[in-house]
Amino acid sequence: MNPRPHHDGSELYVSDPAPALGDTVTVFVRVPRGTGVARVHLRSVRDGEPVFTSATVDRKDGGDTWWRAELTAHNPITSYRFLLGATSGVRWLTAYGVTNHDVPDSTDFRLVAQPPAPRWARDAVIYQIFPDRYARSPAADLRETPDWAIRAASWDEPVEPGPDATRVLYGGDLDGIARRLDHVTALGANTIYLTPFFPARSNHRYDAAGFDRVDPLLGGDRALERLSAAARERGVRLIGDLTTNHTGDAHPWFAARPEFYYPGVFWLGVPSLPKLNWADPGLRHEFRAIAQQWLSEPYGLSGWRVDVANMTGRHGADDLNHEVAALLRGAVLDGLLIAEHGHDATGDLDRDGWHGTMNYAGFTRPVWSWLRAETVPFDGFLGNPEELPVRDASALVATMSAFAAQMSWRSWEASWQLLGSHDTARIRTVVGDAGRQHVAAGLLCTLPGTPMVFAGDEIGLTGGGNESARAPMPWDRPDNWDNTTLGRYRDLIALRKGAPALTRGGLRWIHAEGDVLAFLRESAAQSVLVLAVRGGDTKIRLTGLPPDTTLESLYGGATPLHIESDGSTVIDVSGPAVQVWDLP
Amino acid sequence: MNPRPHHDGSELYVSDPAPALGDTVTVFVRVPRGTGVARVHLRSVRDGEPVFTSATVDRKDGGDTWWRAELTAHNPITSYRFLLGATSGVRWLTAYGVTNHDVPDSTDFRLVAQPPAPRWARDAVIYQIFPDRYARSPAADLRETPDWAIRAASWDEPVEPGPDATRVLYGGDLDGIARRLDHVTALGANTIYLTPFFPARSNHRYDAAGFDRVDPLLGGDRALERLSAAARERGVRLIGDLTTNHTGDAHPWFAARPEFYYPGVFWLGVPSLPKLNWADPGLRHEFRAIAQQWLSEPYGLSGWRVDVANMTGRHGADDLNHEVAALLRGAVLDGLLIAEHGHDATGDLDRDGWHGTMNYAGFTRPVWSWLRAETVPFDGFLGNPEELPVRDASALVATMSAFAAQMSWRSWEASWQLLGSHDTARIRTVVGDAGRQHVAAGLLCTLPGTPMVFAGDEIGLTGGGNESARAPMPWDRPDNWDNTTLGRYRDLIALRKGAPALTRGGLRWIHAEGDVLAFLRESAAQSVLVLAVRGGDTKIRLTGLPPDTTLESLYGGATPLHIESDGSTVIDVSGPAVQVWDLP
Repeated sequence: MNPRPHHDGSELYVSDPAPALGDTVTVFVRVPRGTGVARVHLRSVRDGEPVFTSATVDRKDGGDTWWRAELTAHNPITSYRFLLGATSGVRWLTAYGVTNHDVPDSTDFRLVAQPPAPRWARDAVIYQIFPDRYARSPAADLRETPDWAIRAASWDEPVEPGPDATRVLYGGDLDGIARRLDHVTALGANTIYLTPFFPARSNHRYDAAGFDRVDPLLGGDRALERLSAAARERGVRLIGDLTTNHTGDAHPWFAARPEFYYPGVFWLGVPSLPKLNWADPGLRHEFRAIAQQWLSEPYGLSGWRVDVANMTGRHGADDLNHEVAALLRGAVLDGLLIAEHGHDATGDLDRDGWHGTMNYAGFTRPVWSWLRAETVPFDGFLGNPEELPVRDASALVATMSAFAAQMSWRSWEASWQLLGSHDTARIRTVVGDAGRQHVAAGLLCTLPGTPMVFAGDEIGLTGGGNESARAPMPWDRPDNWDNTTLGRYRDLIALRKGAPALTRGGLRWIHAEGDVLAFLRESAAQSVLVLAVRGGDTKIRLTGLPPDTTLESLYGGATPLHIESDGSTVIDVSGPAVQVWDLP
Repeated sequence: MNPRPHHDGSELYVSDPAPALGDTVTVFVRVPRGTGVARVHLRSVRDGEPVFTSATVDRKDGGDTWWRAELTAHNPITSYRFLLGATSGVRWLTAYGVTNHDVPDSTDFRLVAQPPAPRWARDAVIYQIFPDRYARSPAADLRETPDWAIRAASWDEPVEPGPDATRVLYGGDLDGIARRLDHVTALGANTIYLTPFFPARSNHRYDAAGFDRVDPLLGGDRALERLSAAARERGVRLIGDLTTNHTGDAHPWFAARPEFYYPGVFWLGVPSLPKLNWADPGLRHEFRAIAQQWLSEPYGLSGWRVDVANMTGRHGADDLNHEVAALLRGAVLDGLLIAEHGHDATGDLDRDGWHGTMNYAGFTRPVWSWLRAETVPFDGFLGNPEELPVRDASALVATMSAFAAQMSWRSWEASWQLLGSHDTARIRTVVGDAGRQHVAAGLLCTLPGTPMVFAGDEIGLTGGGNESARAPMPWDRPDNWDNTTLGRYRDLIALRKGAPALTRGGLRWIHAEGDVLAFLRESAAQSVLVLAVRGGDTKIRLTGLPPDTTLESLYGGATPLHIESDGSTVIDVSGPAVQVWDLP
């Protein structure tokens, strides 16, 4: 790729990413030498009308000219783009990149004057735990099996898909999790996302039978208190999982508060999951209280992941989704609010609701498509009827860019990047081997967005469908642990946490072809070069790097990299591989 | 361009373009031979969740396989796309075309379950009249010059830009227009869009001093009644121009109803144009009545063009735009409601508000960029600080497709395509000569969307800025009439009105390179091939046409076109030229 003019929403390019309404910030455009750009104009949309102002040169820095302009956060979302004038013509720079034809505003950059996600979230590394399958405390053995459940013969019994799969109880509990916090902290995760802990009639508990207490099968309220205290002692936060689209039919509301539901409407037609009607003020009142209650002492959760957020409040002519999101945002105060969304959350972000999404569409799927094994024992992806395609690196960049271009930079950063979850196949099965999982984990920890690890991925667990991906953690079967993979996850997470470029840097793609991806993450304090290769022995020529410099290796065991006086370097690399260098 | 799988919102591909909520329609995908598509799935978004259904083969027709699937209008806007499975991989078909990477939902096709634009609008050809400059009745000479105005020395005195330009009164009036209706009908236009006729303190009247009567300078209410009756007699409709973003400071509301305004806020800072605050229920009540009043007898307007619709209801944290649009839509009943919008209206369409927009962004600008003269005596475009770029045919298609992809087909059809207006330079000046204006008019009359002709364009008037584009119609200076151009406009409008393919057909681009554009418009009753060439002598090979056929010329004087057995043909053409053939 030739060097191109660049802007994104990171600190290098926006003086204040969290302005109040009416504040003015400075925005910068970085124009590499040789792009012919002689004039830069900022176009922002103010009350629906484009306004142009001319940018001025702020400084020249290496081969780059930095242009600056002032931008006022006139509306809650102020969309803006740049017009680049050159003798060869004019081009637009939007969040999708540089185009030489006109494009609609949907890929404009966005300056958002809503309170941002909490500061801690930027440095979060999320570890997702499905409580029934993570770990048992001694008390777990003493609990009675409820009427709906089928007790698994043993913790290590293989999970089986099938109509009864959601009834099979392995008996993991919250005290079990508390006993394994050292594993979580050793991995480097600092935030645990727990799938639902409310009472239900399934092992996944997305069919809530109440939101007022912790399922006694998990140890009840006191167990959450203990887990919360133990986690806090280690500097680990907890995030809960709130089901706002539906409840289980065992929820007392279903009998007592019919006005809370759409009569005869169920989540994807499943009759045990009646759909909530958010037009009802009583329901809103209840949920506001629920969202606040569990974030308060003695539980002190740090936020919610919201289940089926994409459908919540939506039914036929009704679309109350934004109202629900705003209500919950108001309730979580300084907590984090993440919307589950499997296809395209961009239309729901950047308002006063969800801070971010689970980025299946803009991260998981393109990474899977680039890294997937030749043959995979699973169908499609979240309901897609066609097998996941094998695509090359340019398609990964095109897809990630297309989704990222329709949200603000900060919504991208706050969104959870994931390689899989309890709803998908395991990444190890998707990519087929440890080498490619390493590349996947490398992208997870080096691209913008908050990494989320589904518990078990870090030890190389496999599973071709969501049920088999929910196998219990094999604490007592060390042969089932891939310690090489565990070491790589630990190293990559440590790399990320220690590298400001990876938590707050901008992103410039510099190479995307077939087996090879390369990109720069650049912040005020640090810049790094990341190289990811899915396979093969390759000699790659990279350009646009700082001339006449030597880059020290930060990750991947590579030797220092010498950059020629034209800003180029040639790298010999055998994939699968991930390498990261520090830029001077 | 190779033939590609195709769908759009026209009648060939959607069984009912105006379903009610809950209705099921049949959608079709046309797959040309050689594209390798073996499976087609429909993905629609239902209450925020994608649902896939498999399409089945409906029929084979020439070289094409037509797939069909059932689609329910489950939400007011049901977005959908197709997944195409082939041995070579899977691709998406969205309204932006075929992609082999994932894209967000913003370019999905849209099935809209809101009442559509009125049926008559599909066959409308709009003629825009700026009343002060169109024609005078004998009574005009007798009217006193108001205090704000400077009387032009004569009708044929050249207009001059400058600070006083909007005060110069030429004295055109509504009875003057009524006397010239034969010109309008001879052109083939059947709908007149009048810029404001309400009293004001400028010749453009966008600074309304009241909405309760017609400006006496234009002849008052009775003159509108007479014009309306005369127009109706000829089958010509009238559309008014409603200023909803602001009024003039001479409007009685400004003194008497301060709650109707944002204190100290003016349109683009112009102190005579105070901005309306739509949060006020009294203002809403007034405007509902105004919108209805002029559509009722004895005036019987057929709808409104809404001035500065893009800014209406938007100020800082307030965004009441959609509420205003819905209120006006409710008021116009079976009238047409068109939003002025200079950059990107797509986010405001397809709801229960505006039927369409003035498509500057998705039509005017790309056409100008393709056809503009080497040197043009005007700056930018609607405030754009860079000179309009010269771009080739592929950029025109990319831009039109990008904007069209973010609105429903029916919003595109209802939107007004224009080559210029009272707010821009004249098309003749933009393109430089009659030949290229012919090509521009050809696109105006053959592409989807409702053609709007700015009065005077049809006789080749020139003007490099909005003021000089507002020169009075030179009724008495036949030397100033380009009758060749007038003949072409008449012929092209007649072609459009007589060709169902042009008013209700779908659109498939088949060639877009440099100087040459070619596309198919196809309806149930008729299909046509359109070729537009901006210049040069070119030999073009077109493919994807019906094999072994002969196409009769419909426009442009070309001889019949023989298509080879492989569906290709070679055309020798000298531009500028527009040619249209009937497909068997």
